[in-house]
Amino acid sequence: MQENPQIPAFVLVRPQMGENIGGAARAMWNFGLDRMRVVAPRDGWPNSKAVAMASGAGRILDEAQLFDTTADAIGDCDFVLATTARARGLTKPVLSPEQAMQEAKARIAAGGRVSVLFGPERAGLKNDDIARANAIISVPVNPEFASLNLAQCVLLTAYEWRRQAGDIDHDRVELAGTEWASGVEMEKLADHFEQRLDDAGFFYPEQKAEGMKLNLRNLWSRMPLTRADVQMFHGMLRQMVRWKERG
Amino acid sequence: MQENPQIPAFVLVRPQMGENIGGAARAMWNFGLDRMRVVAPRDGWPNSKAVAMASGAGRILDEAQLFDTTADAIGDCDFVLATTARARGLTKPVLSPEQAMQEAKARIAAGGRVSVLFGPERAGLKNDDIARANAIISVPVNPEFASLNLAQCVLLTAYEWRRQAGDIDHDRVELAGTEWASGVEMEKLADHFEQRLDDAGFFYPEQKAEGMKLNLRNLWSRMPLTRADVQMFHGMLRQMVRWKERG
Repeated sequence: MQENPQIPAFVLVRPQMGENIGGAARAMWNFGLDRMRVVAPRDGWPNSKAVAMASGAGRILDEAQLFDTTADAIGDCDFVLATTARARGLTKPVLSPEQAMQEAKARIAAGGRVSVLFGPERAGLKNDDIARANAIISVPVNPEFASLNLAQCVLLTAYEWRRQAGDIDHDRVELAGTEWASGVEMEKLADHFEQRLDDAGFFYPEQKAEGMKLNLRNLWSRMPLTRADVQMFHGMLRQMVRWKERG
Repeated sequence: MQENPQIPAFVLVRPQMGENIGGAARAMWNFGLDRMRVVAPRDGWPNSKAVAMASGAGRILDEAQLFDTTADAIGDCDFVLATTARARGLTKPVLSPEQAMQEAKARIAAGGRVSVLFGPERAGLKNDDIARANAIISVPVNPEFASLNLAQCVLLTAYEWRRQAGDIDHDRVELAGTEWASGVEMEKLADHFEQRLDDAGFFYPEQKAEGMKLNLRNLWSRMPLTRADVQMFHGMLRQMVRWKERG
């Protein structure tokens, strides 16, 4: 699949109704976005109801990439945004759609790879998904009445992208020398830390373990680490093991 | 009817499907707009399908004003915008949603009364309607694929109103309530890490030790850590020591 890395990928996480997937494809294509990724759609893939709804935007579905997990879907991305209405006790920058798409534009101009997560229709994204994002996009809806559906949320985000990207400068020089760690590299680092801390008995007591792991994942998502930083952290962990083994 | 003249009225001109009228009401109320006017709805008024679709935004329909003609509906307005995708040979300023809502805000601030016309689902506004508007709003959709429905067009316009009207706090405090680690706390954490890594023999070979420590200090300086994060890192380090001491 030849994807255009000059635009963000929109990742539908565990979408339910095919109609909504099709509606999201239409919303994206209205603003020229055609990089859709789909994580574990409830009704399988391809989805005939999605295709019927998408009509003129069917190509977006044909070319959509399918993934089993959110982590896989963002593996090649170095900046991930999560759309969510709810604050969930995770420390994470909260951006308006405008701020988020400005940031996305700047990252992409600097050679970064950006994706935006959209949750399932009713439940929205889980904390486990959100913990992997670098920032949250919060649409400034009426606090008395927040009822955006999936396609509408996609539409507003795509609109803001188009607005911000209107004068995107494709010739801008990449930030000199800095190689940011990719999603896969961050995921591996988080796994490595989690494994070693598990060995060391850090996640204790048992009933708190899951929350502690979630906090740790969330912490990594906020860290602007370079590839060199990631290598240093891996080296630290390996050294800790050697240290222990020396007894 | 007591209307709030501080916000624009949204005028649905000859809307067809009740579901779309209800969807438009929801879209408006998502961004705090509650002044709906309806011109000659195809299926009469009130419309039970519109009410069913509007659900939590039903009040917007209850309070909507009904008119026979577009001219009547905008009779009290001194600035009228028309949303339309098509150029129709009428000489008329064409504004982006952003420019249009900036203008609306300025007019309203100066005591003006503003309304926005939305056409019927398929056909859109007639030239006879558009001729009554002071300017056209054109959403910058993909020229290859322009398929906004009525509720989506209302949604984007309402979103832009909310954005321009400054209900959105652009200086929103990021991460409200987050207690960031102080310089002293970060320094102590860096010291703790350095000490433990030194114990573990991480800074090796000797001639590279200083450079490695500098890199590590620099890394901490870039990490946006909360107090809770700092405590977690201290906890990790203590646990690593216990782990080693258990042998």
